[in-house]
Amino acid sequence: MDLDTTPALLVDRDILDRNIARMAQSAASRGLSLRPHAKTHKCSEIGRRQLGAGARGLTVATVSEAEVFADEGFDDLFVAYPLWVDAARGARLRALADRVRLTVGIDSATGARQFVEHAGTAIGVLVEIDSGHHRTGVLPEQAGTVASAAREAGLDVRGVFTFPGHSYAPDAPDSAAREEADALAAAAASLRAAGIEPTVISGGSSPTAHLDVPTVATELRPGVYVFGDAQQLELGAVSESDIALTALATVVSARDEVIVLDAGSKVLGADRAAWATGYGRILGEPDARITALSEHHATVQWPEASTRPQLGDRVRVIPNHVCNAVNLADELITVSGDAVVERWKVAARGCNT
Amino acid sequence: MDLDTTPALLVDRDILDRNIARMAQSAASRGLSLRPHAKTHKCSEIGRRQLGAGARGLTVATVSEAEVFADEGFDDLFVAYPLWVDAARGARLRALADRVRLTVGIDSATGARQFVEHAGTAIGVLVEIDSGHHRTGVLPEQAGTVASAAREAGLDVRGVFTFPGHSYAPDAPDSAAREEADALAAAAASLRAAGIEPTVISGGSSPTAHLDVPTVATELRPGVYVFGDAQQLELGAVSESDIALTALATVVSARDEVIVLDAGSKVLGADRAAWATGYGRILGEPDARITALSEHHATVQWPEASTRPQLGDRVRVIPNHVCNAVNLADELITVSGDAVVERWKVAARGCNT
Repeated sequence: MDLDTTPALLVDRDILDRNIARMAQSAASRGLSLRPHAKTHKCSEIGRRQLGAGARGLTVATVSEAEVFADEGFDDLFVAYPLWVDAARGARLRALADRVRLTVGIDSATGARQFVEHAGTAIGVLVEIDSGHHRTGVLPEQAGTVASAAREAGLDVRGVFTFPGHSYAPDAPDSAAREEADALAAAAASLRAAGIEPTVISGGSSPTAHLDVPTVATELRPGVYVFGDAQQLELGAVSESDIALTALATVVSARDEVIVLDAGSKVLGADRAAWATGYGRILGEPDARITALSEHHATVQWPEASTRPQLGDRVRVIPNHVCNAVNLADELITVSGDAVVERWKVAARGCNT
Repeated sequence: MDLDTTPALLVDRDILDRNIARMAQSAASRGLSLRPHAKTHKCSEIGRRQLGAGARGLTVATVSEAEVFADEGFDDLFVAYPLWVDAARGARLRALADRVRLTVGIDSATGARQFVEHAGTAIGVLVEIDSGHHRTGVLPEQAGTVASAAREAGLDVRGVFTFPGHSYAPDAPDSAAREEADALAAAAASLRAAGIEPTVISGGSSPTAHLDVPTVATELRPGVYVFGDAQQLELGAVSESDIALTALATVVSARDEVIVLDAGSKVLGADRAAWATGYGRILGEPDARITALSEHHATVQWPEASTRPQLGDRVRVIPNHVCNAVNLADELITVSGDAVVERWKVAARGCNT
């Protein structure tokens, strides 16, 4: 590959486009809108490809991500986060709402009143519910109470959303998808009981998005599916041929069955779920494992000393959690086969506020 | 605190300066040179404070970090990494060596010959040895063989270095420091047996740097000590009053004894050693634990519901591994007490090549 240095993040454009098309078709075939989570790629070129394949808009996690995508011309954004809106954030939200169709998450009556005080009432909100991940969000049957308080404060309550993050465990995706469907149904009923008709019922995660579980959802928000990663691989949600993003790394040290690569936690991210088999995987060598990770070293146990790469050889590493890997890079190098095609800026890198 | 948004990385300047002075005095009292690892802070203002307190030069992990610090006027840099030097990296190293006193690591005869082919012979090298961390580096008794090969290839072999990374475990610092001292002594003897007198014998890590273990080392390279972090706290290497860097975060969701903060793995890093008690600690609340971490959420279990912070309150989070947290930020906000003093650029953020 014609790249003069490592480490670098490579995106296989052909696989990327296939992943985007497949998810778009899957959602369309079930009559669901698609609003992909852009925190995974943070990249306008990829967001445009998702809209081109039929996505309704983008999901983001922070106001600063929304600002970057608005600057890049995206006009329909959902901040899937229960923002605490103080004066400064309120001013930024009002400025955003002047130029894009903006929706924001809430998960408390207190948060809704705070929202109105600083951001006004021109922005739509979705009530976040907890479908089993136990992070943010209220219980489904409390959705109507929060929605009523938000409406009383003057907000346009458009519906409910959830993230079934408990799908990220072995054998969990199917049950998590069913719990999510039940929770969304209960939350929608709770809104209706409060006299509010939800027009958006939003859910989805990459491990569950391909499962055809009956649901009242109107919208899916998967993120990781564009690239895939070692977590999705180990959860069985994708196969290696679906992996669009890898870190190109060089062997800098070697002994017996062990090689050390120049891509560490400052390239791959330090993510390692309790059920993960290592700190990432090696493309084309399913039996190799990254057994230790420092900031600039990945220690890889190869199946056999006789077949391991040599000093100076390059290998492609599949990060465990691609969202955190992308957020460490300034650019993505797109390739087609072994040819470099172009470089895409990670425009929203580091946008945490 | 007069800051209009969270999350943000705060550096308490008074604690920072105390940490820098204390390590400088500790090294000086033992007759050791100090060459702090700048991968922790990536910030020229902090590097200058370290030199001002007596450090001999800086350590970096990558050529691009060296380029940034050279641009900022630092003139004595050691790349503590067994670089694989191809044509592109060789050209960059030669350009660097024209303007700074540069030393680079090697850990194989093959790597040394490759180095000379592309970077020439004007750059000094140290042979990396494995003192028990089992990452890169040769066994101490092999140091002379690698050093001889490097000298035969034309390189100026200045000595040996090691990183006792196996000090990062409970009750490990003392034994790791002793193994490091033994390994450095054996490596120095191996060089002398090959007819090479080592002028630099370099070691050290933040968990071991304060231990007064007899050693032949001439130089220490701790990094994390400037800030401290939750790992150092849990290893007993620092106390909470030594923690100079925290992430300021806002409570965005709350229930019972649980709060959710807006600083997740894209701010704190996803590091969690097997022995860590959580994904970071809360300043001033030693019994709170971060039990789950997503990209933009830290889920904190508070000791009691009655004392937990409320929606919109701000807390300060101590990251597990401060090097990875700093590398996610564009700037560090320095404070003195509760007053914001100035903003320092993380100049070498993302410099992985």
